[in-house]
Amino acid sequence: MNLSIGRLPHGNRNLITDVPGVRVGHATIDEGNCHTGVTVVLPPRENPFTDKLTAACCVFNGFGKTLGLVQVEELGQLETPIALTNTLNVGKVHDALVSYMIGLCQRDGIHLTSVNPVVCECNDSRISDIVQRPIGEQEVFAAIASASDVFAQGAVGAGRGTVCYGMKGGVGSSSRLMEIDGKMYTLGVLVQSNYGASADFRAACLPDELAECDQGSIILIAATDLPLSSRQLKRVLRRASVGMARLGSYIGHGSGEIAVGFTTAQMETHGSFQTQTILREDLMNLPFRAIGECAEEAILQSLWHASPDHALDGTAIPSLREFLADRSREK
Amino acid sequence: MNLSIGRLPHGNRNLITDVPGVRVGHATIDEGNCHTGVTVVLPPRENPFTDKLTAACCVFNGFGKTLGLVQVEELGQLETPIALTNTLNVGKVHDALVSYMIGLCQRDGIHLTSVNPVVCECNDSRISDIVQRPIGEQEVFAAIASASDVFAQGAVGAGRGTVCYGMKGGVGSSSRLMEIDGKMYTLGVLVQSNYGASADFRAACLPDELAECDQGSIILIAATDLPLSSRQLKRVLRRASVGMARLGSYIGHGSGEIAVGFTTAQMETHGSFQTQTILREDLMNLPFRAIGECAEEAILQSLWHASPDHALDGTAIPSLREFLADRSREK
Amino acid sequence: MNLSIGRLPHGNRNLITDVPGVRVGHATIDEGNCHTGVTVVLPPRENPFTDKLTAACCVFNGFGKTLGLVQVEELGQLETPIALTNTLNVGKVHDALVSYMIGLCQRDGIHLTSVNPVVCECNDSRISDIVQRPIGEQEVFAAIASASDVFAQGAVGAGRGTVCYGMKGGVGSSSRLMEIDGKMYTLGVLVQSNYGASADFRAACLPDELAECDQGSIILIAATDLPLSSRQLKRVLRRASVGMARLGSYIGHGSGEIAVGFTTAQMETHGSFQTQTILREDLMNLPFRAIGECAEEAILQSLWHASPDHALDGTAIPSLREFLADRSREK
Amino acid sequence: MNLSIGRLPHGNRNLITDVPGVRVGHATIDEGNCHTGVTVVLPPRENPFTDKLTAACCVFNGFGKTLGLVQVEELGQLETPIALTNTLNVGKVHDALVSYMIGLCQRDGIHLTSVNPVVCECNDSRISDIVQRPIGEQEVFAAIASASDVFAQGAVGAGRGTVCYGMKGGVGSSSRLMEIDGKMYTLGVLVQSNYGASADFRAACLPDELAECDQGSIILIAATDLPLSSRQLKRVLRRASVGMARLGSYIGHGSGEIAVGFTTAQMETHGSFQTQTILREDLMNLPFRAIGECAEEAILQSLWHASPDHALDGTAIPSLREFLADRSREK
Repeated sequence: MNLSIGRLPHGNRNLITDVPGVRVGHATIDEGNCHTGVTVVLPPRENPFTDKLTAACCVFNGFGKTLGLVQVEELGQLETPIALTNTLNVGKVHDALVSYMIGLCQRDGIHLTSVNPVVCECNDSRISDIVQRPIGEQEVFAAIASASDVFAQGAVGAGRGTVCYGMKGGVGSSSRLMEIDGKMYTLGVLVQSNYGASADFRAACLPDELAECDQGSIILIAATDLPLSSRQLKRVLRRASVGMARLGSYIGHGSGEIAVGFTTAQMETHGSFQTQTILREDLMNLPFRAIGECAEEAILQSLWHASPDHALDGTAIPSLREFLADRSREK
Repeated sequence: MNLSIGRLPHGNRNLITDVPGVRVGHATIDEGNCHTGVTVVLPPRENPFTDKLTAACCVFNGFGKTLGLVQVEELGQLETPIALTNTLNVGKVHDALVSYMIGLCQRDGIHLTSVNPVVCECNDSRISDIVQRPIGEQEVFAAIASASDVFAQGAVGAGRGTVCYGMKGGVGSSSRLMEIDGKMYTLGVLVQSNYGASADFRAACLPDELAECDQGSIILIAATDLPLSSRQLKRVLRRASVGMARLGSYIGHGSGEIAVGFTTAQMETHGSFQTQTILREDLMNLPFRAIGECAEEAILQSLWHASPDHALDGTAIPSLREFLADRSREK
Repeated sequence: MNLSIGRLPHGNRNLITDVPGVRVGHATIDEGNCHTGVTVVLPPRENPFTDKLTAACCVFNGFGKTLGLVQVEELGQLETPIALTNTLNVGKVHDALVSYMIGLCQRDGIHLTSVNPVVCECNDSRISDIVQRPIGEQEVFAAIASASDVFAQGAVGAGRGTVCYGMKGGVGSSSRLMEIDGKMYTLGVLVQSNYGASADFRAACLPDELAECDQGSIILIAATDLPLSSRQLKRVLRRASVGMARLGSYIGHGSGEIAVGFTTAQMETHGSFQTQTILREDLMNLPFRAIGECAEEAILQSLWHASPDHALDGTAIPSLREFLADRSREK
Repeated sequence: MNLSIGRLPHGNRNLITDVPGVRVGHATIDEGNCHTGVTVVLPPRENPFTDKLTAACCVFNGFGKTLGLVQVEELGQLETPIALTNTLNVGKVHDALVSYMIGLCQRDGIHLTSVNPVVCECNDSRISDIVQRPIGEQEVFAAIASASDVFAQGAVGAGRGTVCYGMKGGVGSSSRLMEIDGKMYTLGVLVQSNYGASADFRAACLPDELAECDQGSIILIAATDLPLSSRQLKRVLRRASVGMARLGSYIGHGSGEIAVGFTTAQMETHGSFQTQTILREDLMNLPFRAIGECAEEAILQSLWHASPDHALDGTAIPSLREFLADRSREK
């Protein structure tokens, strides 16, 4: 999809994986009435538990079931991959990430007794039988194993069953480049889009008969190689809402809107102290602008790449492509 | 200005004073290099200290000097009028509100020993010599005395010296009606607009030569007669950012963006307890939508009503009207 | 244990279950190296999903893995039983609560597609092989089935493997009565105690050779029948730290200290609105005092009822009784 | 006063000014019924506006009127001296700090157009006629001019009229040394003590007839030369409540309890980036312990140094010394 949103250039792939070392993997389930999945965002660390990343989170609307934010908020650290799945499956995916981290630490000779998995979710019950919770260790491990710097967008992984503005939603991603002191830094966003009523969609005039979705959510994962403190990262994440608002969202009551982000910049340890490089506060407008543009475009990408689908009750869920084709035909 | 923003109908005056009993007053200073002022929003209470209002606040970007939010956050109560002025004058306006409240309580036979004035601000130093701090008791009392349900918008009071998207900003207001169980409720917003770079303004294509403003801010005051708890009011205020984002803001670093709101709905006291009526949580989308629409329109109103001006350094600050005229001439 | 902490009288049982209708159940595992368990606090509702309770939470130190707080914070509501277990088992217990709630709703003819279980935890890896995660649906359902207004304290359920101030910790509880307008209200606390170094314990002079515990935590669940808003409940919970501090805690880095509370007072629904009775804000000192006293006493009760134990590495973990006996023998 | 609170050694003076470069000054008013004052804590910077300090704040109970916290919370920076005064005088002191900072910047050739003064307060209306607000520029400038590394404690400056646990309160201070990697770091605390009912005081058994004070507060200012991020500083400040709780406080409703802190450690700027040294997170227990000990001792020091006084209504307010003498006489 050839969009031109904002002023900043995007990275090579226009994906969150333009941030060096970041990888994304999916596992998708299509069995019986289950049309769901899991998506993992892997930070560029051999073992994120022993080599933690500076991180932050921002809750725009806390009507959601994301797990692991208490510790991210307190310590400003991420110590596992981030997993995205459906609302009722978060416990099992949490447990699978515990297993994964125990294994990773065993490999490194560490006996893990405490770990804080971050698991985000959207409610895909219009399209998938959410009660069944089919995502377990096997699916999470498969998603991790498949992680790569190129990955599918649209109705895959955690985006398999989501609905956004009455159209088929899914996973979408975008990136922006920021030049600072002659060096290029990247900020990338991945969204799981599952919010909004069609009548509120601002980027196009949609058919009126599309029903409002009741239990939405949007999860937004941000990664960057720009050196930022966790306080600064939190300020950046807070601006992600700008992208959603521009597409017509008013942050509905039932839409759990949550952002989690990390920087891949390393801290150096010297004895009891660490040295952290951070951006000068008066230059924060650059990442602020970048995340707003990325969020807006990632949501549109999630719509653009998603195939049309049907709800469990038989209602057709059109794709954005389908809709645009319809509209040009009408003219 | 005949705008049609959003879906909800606006109130009679399309002003925050459509909320029954709410009044707004200004005092404007134009002396030498001082082009500034104070605006007060008066809740409909004989004495807000003895008859407190349920209130909340929301800080989108805390690079600002608003006073009084610590107690609003803790107790969910407003006990004074809300004053808006310029950044360096907040201390003096705070002191003036203390005087005002001491007098009000004396009238009612109460010896006031503690009170929490809420004073918001924007930085108007491009147009006004902000160091002089000319707003004292006289000006604050005059603003309160002039308060009415009809009031001027644009470059008056606290909006006298503000700049928004490179155009002359000011005070703007808008309201929305919400029908619930066959009864009409009103939510109104008043803004002091002083943020944004012209190039980011989304509602129109502006001339490129307009400079970015460095130290911005937007203050948004919301009033409603809808019965809400302070927690619910805070959720409503959080959606005010939607209006700003839709006009192109990405919540810049230097832009202190703060919302304060109150409901005029009364609690009943029975002995040691109070009875509070609140909206069912699953119906919150209505006030969420209302505040987004009000915020967007109030900002546009502040631009629409503002006269063109000059910065202290002589730079012309065009009005929105001026700009629209220019553009139609170009075509 | 005959303690006299504070000034307020305690309830009949001096347990959280003195709050009418609240029940507590345990399931304890002692198999091989696993010495752990789960404790559930059941609010007095047939179905807490359809009949939600006003709730709040307070994070003193977020170095912890408690699940479900994002939504409690946003909506001020509890919609499931609260479960307590060990750090690595929270995902599985979360999933078990999802199953339980699906069943409960099915019974009531509701197709549940979204629910927010609250699962708290302490790290019991000194005494139990935490990697094994033996608590699943069977154990959670058994704990719920066993729930009653009388329940064991000490090294049972979620307290089976905890260590507190170098002594055997566990589950403890206490309650306080508050007379308001001639009516008695109850506030009760249940703790899972797993924090503190022996040298910091203030209630007695302990042997120096007791090692500091590295990865602690304390979970504090509060229940009351006093009508409070979620904002007021949060203010009450914030005072729970007073009880911990008085026993010598300085809220250590590794000690995830988290409080979750609910009131059993009902809201009445009239069409689109609810009527909520709340305590007058100026009378909040009574529940503030009550929770401080309850927290302090509940921790001591958890120590008093716990039997001595051994760490996985063979180190003896004395009980408080054992220690007091030792000390009197020394004299 | 020879106290031995806690385990850590205190600095040379056992004052906040043991942190190198930190200075404290007072101005005290005793005119007619006014017995009040202002205390300033000066960070070791020629100009804190151009050379900002990493800072944080923590609100234990927000029933208070402290000014300036919104920006400290957002940016993690302090850019002025911190002033403490009485509740109704905060606006005038805020304005005086604006004047002071304008002057300081003028000296350095900077035209100041925005600044965020931090002004804290307690309510001293039992002893002083708080309505009069006698503290203006003259008094604030005098306090700053008098600032030194040695300063009076007790009923001086902002502590002139405060009452704590029914005894005469005031300004108190204490410090602790922390050895890390063979180097000594200092953390110091200054309190303005004005909270608590005599019957709750835990350090001694006080006469029952002492009345409860209604509108309390405690302000706690912390300084350190330990390199910490603002997030870490906030974690440290949160533990200040431990000291209060140990002296019997249950954080009463009317007691605005607020902590503000800064580190004097410098960040280095390289182009668009800054390098910040911070303590390893797993070593945070040392400053956590230090602030708990400092807070407890600083409050006792404020009582110890305060002379007995009378309330405006003639009631005697005993000093701690007086009380201790009484008690030993009784025995």
